[in-house]
Amino acid sequence: MHSVRFINETSAGGVVERDFLVDDVPGVLWAPVSGADHAPVVLLGHNGGMHKKAPGLRARALHAAATWGFNVVAIDAPGHGDRPRTTEDEQARTEIRQAVTAGDTPRFAAASVRLTASLAERAVREWQMTLDALQALPRIGPDAPVGYGGGISMGTAIGVRLAAAEPRIAAAIFGGGFFVDEPVLTAARQITVPVQFLLPWDDQHVERSSGLALFDAFASAEKTLHANAGDHRGARWVGVDDTFLARHLGRA
Amino acid sequence: MHSVRFINETSAGGVVERDFLVDDVPGVLWAPVSGADHAPVVLLGHNGGMHKKAPGLRARALHAAATWGFNVVAIDAPGHGDRPRTTEDEQARTEIRQAVTAGDTPRFAAASVRLTASLAERAVREWQMTLDALQALPRIGPDAPVGYGGGISMGTAIGVRLAAAEPRIAAAIFGGGFFVDEPVLTAARQITVPVQFLLPWDDQHVERSSGLALFDAFASAEKTLHANAGDHRGARWVGVDDTFLARHLGRA
Repeated sequence: MHSVRFINETSAGGVVERDFLVDDVPGVLWAPVSGADHAPVVLLGHNGGMHKKAPGLRARALHAAATWGFNVVAIDAPGHGDRPRTTEDEQARTEIRQAVTAGDTPRFAAASVRLTASLAERAVREWQMTLDALQALPRIGPDAPVGYGGGISMGTAIGVRLAAAEPRIAAAIFGGGFFVDEPVLTAARQITVPVQFLLPWDDQHVERSSGLALFDAFASAEKTLHANAGDHRGARWVGVDDTFLARHLGRA
Repeated sequence: MHSVRFINETSAGGVVERDFLVDDVPGVLWAPVSGADHAPVVLLGHNGGMHKKAPGLRARALHAAATWGFNVVAIDAPGHGDRPRTTEDEQARTEIRQAVTAGDTPRFAAASVRLTASLAERAVREWQMTLDALQALPRIGPDAPVGYGGGISMGTAIGVRLAAAEPRIAAAIFGGGFFVDEPVLTAARQITVPVQFLLPWDDQHVERSSGLALFDAFASAEKTLHANAGDHRGARWVGVDDTFLARHLGRA
């Protein structure tokens, strides 16, 4: 098994930020300076084109570590952040750009779905490898509850597949903002843990029905849809239940 | 103008519950025993078949008065609680019962919409009369911010029309669970104040699209849809933003 290699450490506001590698996957772990052992682990997925320390994600990570004492983890998705892109990924991105320029929505959707499926297949294995390595750290251990915080878009396309495959995930935050295809719906139907789902009501890229169908597919007895007015990047999230992961990971 | 006639008073848990009449409309006012003057007023609508002191409504009223110091008000809708039914209302209820027994959904929907529209027309005038009378009390006064808390179903069918007609309402909680027709959508399009909207995701009586269309119709810049798994009466509301009215009525 690959182990966690810590390569850098800074701290601010009572939270330590530690960069690490597991095999060749770069990640970051945020935890309270004086946190308890075996605190819950929260995996944060980033959106397409972003990376493990994108400002919005990092702000959420610092807040969650400081407020709830979580071990918060992010990794760069394949071809994102510090990671090289494969030739196939480059070709897919070129096709997406061309489709957008041509205003060819069906081609844009098809190419996005293909690229996301390919990235997600790799990302699920990388998340599992990373979680294995983190749980081998005495500070975390195998019994710390694990949650997934996905944001909208690619973080959810990956996270839904991860939560379907990974029984260690006990609660998950997902969202809309991407093209939901049948494999994603199939994965969602296997998810029974509590889900909080964020939907930008006026997304300009993706049909609203797509996000509603994804929320509908979760088999979870407890699921909450939270929609706010606004488009893909402009939705102002107000009134979101900030205690969701804490409640389900034993911290509230 | 009709004034508030208080007819009974009890108190428990730091909250006074005062029954009143405005003209022939019976109502109840909950307020903290030691509350401030000119505190916000929250109008709570009850659901069809219920009344001003239905257990769920009363629990919300006591919580809101104790937590935020609100003046919380409920009145019996026409033909509900302590109020007599008109011959027309009785006929409409008989028709609804017959349609349900016959499994005739279109007839059920049409009769429900007609009865609700008729009740709502009267209820809007009664809410306005009640609010006028309450604002004439020195303890409340004309400048206290006013919100509407509707629950789902008939409380929203009335509340949407009230909020469209009544500029004093500064924020509103609405919900699904009833047949949304064009007059309700037209009223919703006139509403620009912040809206929190509750949707039982698996309502057995009403198409989901009906509630989604109503949420979509609000012209509010800030609107939040909150859906939980569960049917008309079985939805367990979790993670709802309890501070919504307090934020918009100057109490949070």
